[in-house]
Order: sequence, then C-alpha cells, then structure tokens
Amino acid sequence: MARPEAWRLSAEAYPHREIIQTRFQDLDVLGHINNVGMAAILESGRVKFNQATGLDAWRDRRWLVAQVIINYLGEGHFPADVVVASGIGQIGTRSWTILSTAFQHDVPIATCDTVVVMSSEGGLTALPDEYRAALEGWRVPAG
Amino acid sequence: MARPEAWRLSAEAYPHREIIQTRFQDLDVLGHINNVGMAAILESGRVKFNQATGLDAWRDRRWLVAQVIINYLGEGHFPADVVVASGIGQIGTRSWTILSTAFQHDVPIATCDTVVVMSSEGGLTALPDEYRAALEGWRVPAG
Amino acid sequence: MARPEAWRLSAEAYPHREIIQTRFQDLDVLGHINNVGMAAILESGRVKFNQATGLDAWRDRRWLVAQVIINYLGEGHFPADVVVASGIGQIGTRSWTILSTAFQHDVPIATCDTVVVMSSEGGLTALPDEYRAALEGWRVPAG
Amino acid sequence: MARPEAWRLSAEAYPHREIIQTRFQDLDVLGHINNVGMAAILESGRVKFNQATGLDAWRDRRWLVAQVIINYLGEGHFPADVVVASGIGQIGTRSWTILSTAFQHDVPIATCDTVVVMSSEGGLTALPDEYRAALEGWRVPAG
Repeated sequence: MARPEAWRLSAEAYPHREIIQTRFQDLDVLGHINNVGMAAILESGRVKFNQATGLDAWRDRRWLVAQVIINYLGEGHFPADVVVASGIGQIGTRSWTILSTAFQHDVPIATCDTVVVMSSEGGLTALPDEYRAALEGWRVPAG
Repeated sequence: MARPEAWRLSAEAYPHREIIQTRFQDLDVLGHINNVGMAAILESGRVKFNQATGLDAWRDRRWLVAQVIINYLGEGHFPADVVVASGIGQIGTRSWTILSTAFQHDVPIATCDTVVVMSSEGGLTALPDEYRAALEGWRVPAG
Repeated sequence: MARPEAWRLSAEAYPHREIIQTRFQDLDVLGHINNVGMAAILESGRVKFNQATGLDAWRDRRWLVAQVIINYLGEGHFPADVVVASGIGQIGTRSWTILSTAFQHDVPIATCDTVVVMSSEGGLTALPDEYRAALEGWRVPAG
Repeated sequence: MARPEAWRLSAEAYPHREIIQTRFQDLDVLGHINNVGMAAILESGRVKFNQATGLDAWRDRRWLVAQVIINYLGEGHFPADVVVASGIGQIGTRSWTILSTAFQHDVPIATCDTVVVMSSEGGLTALPDEYRAALEGWRVPAG
C-alpha cells in the first residue's frame, strides 16, 4: 500500500471540486462511513466531474470503468458533506485515469484512481484527438 | 392507494426543507431513481430534519421506525437535487408521524409517512411532555 | 400503525418464498439492518417472486410501483439470510398489491405491501384478462 | 491497468468460495451491475470469508481496510448469483491482503485486492504470531 503523493492531500491541487452529501445509510456499525458508502460518494463526485467538464460523452461513445483503486486515509462521518476533488491523470492510447481525493472538514479521507477505457461496438477503441485534447485540459499538475 | 392530500404537493406547506443530492447509484435500468434509492433519499431528508430541529434525541432515548409508507408520484432523475420537505403529523401517546414530500425541479415525486415510536430499556414508552411540545412546534398545518 | 394480520406472520401462508441474503452494508450504527437495507431486501424478494411466477411481463408492458408500505416488526441482523414470502393481495382494474413478509430465524421482521400499476404509452391501462388470471393463481389465502 | 494473474481466473485456485446474491438495486442504467454494487458484493464475499475462516477477530482487535483495488473484467447481471472466491495474499508486519475474484456463470467478472491493517488503541499494531499463522493457513497458492 503506497502512501498517496503529497499533492493529493490538497483539494486546491485539483482542477475541479464537487460537494457530495453523505447519507445516513453510508454509516457502518462503528458509526463511520462504510467502505462501499465511500465508493458511492467517490463515484458521484467522479460522475459530476465528468458532467461539469463535458467529458461525459457517454451517449455518443461508451465508457467502461476498468479499475478503481481506493485508499482509505481516515474515517468519514455523517452528516457533514464531502468534497471530492478530481482531475485527469495519465492518458493512454485507449484509456485514461481520473484521480480524486475526498475531504471532510478539510481532512483527506480517501483517494481514488479510476481507469476508464473507451469502447465502441468493435471493442476497445483509440481516443479521438479531440477527446484527448479535452482530457488534457483537466490534467492534474503533478499527474 | 390514496392520492396525497393537496397541501402535500407544495414544499412551502411544510415547516422544514432539506436539499438532498441524488447519486448515480440511485438510478435503475430505466434511468430513473430506483424505489430503494428514493427511500434512501427520503431517509436522509428525514434524519436531517430531525437534526436541524433538535428532535433527534437519539443519544438519550431510542427511536424505532415502525412504519414507512412511500407513495411514488413521478419519476426521479440524476443529477438534479431533491428537496425533501418535512413536518410532524399525528402525535400519539408513544409515537408520532413524520410527513415528507420529495420534489425535483419543483415537481412532487414522492410522499413519505414515517411512524416513529419511542422506546426505553423497558419497552415502548410514553412521550415526555417536553418532547411532545417540541414535536408540536414542527406540526404541519393540515397534519 | 396497524398490526399485521395474524396470517402474515407465517411464511407458509404465502404461496411463494425466496431466500434473500443480507449484506454487511445493510447494517446501521446499532448493528441492525437499516430501514433502507430492509427495503432493498424486500425489493429483491419481490422481484424474484415476479420472475419465479412469470408475473414479470416487464418487457412487454411497463409496471410502475405506486406505493410501498413497510411495517418494521423486529430487528434484522447480518449475516443470516432472510426469507421473503410473497403473494398477490387485492387485484383492481389497473393495479394489484403484492404482499410480503420478511423472516429471519423464522421470526417475522417486516411486512411489505406494494401497489403496482400497469401502464402503456397512453398512460395507466386496464389489466388484460390473461394477466389477471395469472395474478389470481398466486393470491394469498386471506388476501 | 495490469491484467490479473492467470490463476485468479479460476475459482478453484482459491481456498474459499462464497455464493453472494445480486440485487435488483445493483443494476445501472445499462442493465449491468454497477461498480458500487460490485464493490458491495465483493465486500459481502470478503466478510463472509473472514467469518467462515475465523479470521474475523473484530471483537478483540480492530481492523481497518486501508486499500481496495477492483479490476472490472466483465459485465455482471441480475438475478444470477455471484461466486466470490477468496484467499490470503501477502502478509506484512502489520497488514495483509485478501485476494478475491468474483465469477458469474463461471466467468470472472472482477478481481479485488483488499489491504487490511490491524490496529489497537495505540495505533497500528504488529500481527500476533498466532494470527499470522491463521492467515498462513488460508494463503492462495500463488499469492
């Protein structure tokens, strides 16, 4: 388990931030946000990042989430909101990575790296130049 | 299936309103908010109502949700927020009812009636006068 | 809050039973199955009832869940399975009711009454005779 | 995104298997099991593995999930059950890894690597020899 890079512990280091509410149902028996609840919060932050930046061309092309890595850094609570800061990390031929950190009360509680691949009816497909340029516009500084 | 009373179709008729976010995971195969997702949204609205009004004396006494009735009035969507308007309806000897309506884009999409009972270690217990008075302060006009 | 009818406290009184697993994420801060988790368990039991009985003609027609009433009778736990017993209650012109009781360790922990309406592109639509007959075949004895 | 090692595509290569049900609420707008739903299924499989093997000493000590890596290999569906096969991978001084693969209709649809750390009131704590020996008994062959 690698420690997150230092820049990821600051919301301002990311090009985009979304406020995501916690829900009572996210809590586990210890009164903390459950791992799966945190995954749902990070997913909502990621989807809203994609929508806000116009990167969600899901009606024209199909995206597949290929990998999700979540590092749990601290305990999450209800009812305080979570800030999910996101940006684009590595960009490959047919895939890219969305990097996020979740903060509560300004404390980082989880990082999330999501690998997304683009597919068409014939299978995985290379990223169009136009789309690649859009992704570049939302790169994290240190990505 | 009774139609909701007319006053419940207006958020302003309730003494309290909470904005609750939808989540991507709430969606079902038709692209609408799933019934269970709506139940989770209404629960969060109800819990935040209890916290905001100070009616959540759950550390001192124990509450039990005894009944939940949800009427689905229309389709809910993501990512628009939902407004959950809530107030106190009927107040009994040992129980009370929290009435809520969920709105999206100002359109009522669900009502929820939740019967809560108060219990202590010895079983169900009568509402203390002080607590009853607090509940009265948050009654819906037509409750 | 009405007490459930006595026959609903017996799984054998229903024409169909499904075993539904609990999940760790269903638990709340008290270590019991959360209300929303119970709603999800009951939904899965209902959907599997519809599939097992062939009542799920959802590809040809569209169903809408119009109302869900859940009575919480006792505490649910993890990891024990839940038995969701289901049958058809009242059958109307355009709607019908699915009645269920959830049991854990043979103890009834929740009842659920779900009103379903049938719709077509033109709005709510009367139940076809053939479908009504199929529903009749799965009536609860005391429905 | 690394491809999973070949041995992880076979349920029989793991020392333990749990059957985990899918739920209707797991489905997303494309009719597949949502990423978060899959995380919940894998969590239930992992928790039941820990319970079945006696590795869940959570009442005596406290576990923290530090990292979850999920690789999505294929689409999951409802209502078919999922087999979650699990075993112990790397064992460190204060942490260990639970390796799992989820199968549906014998097809691998996701792998999950979970890093767990043991903590006591004073912070992270070394694994007791006895517990380490128990973990060794559930190692995956190629872990």
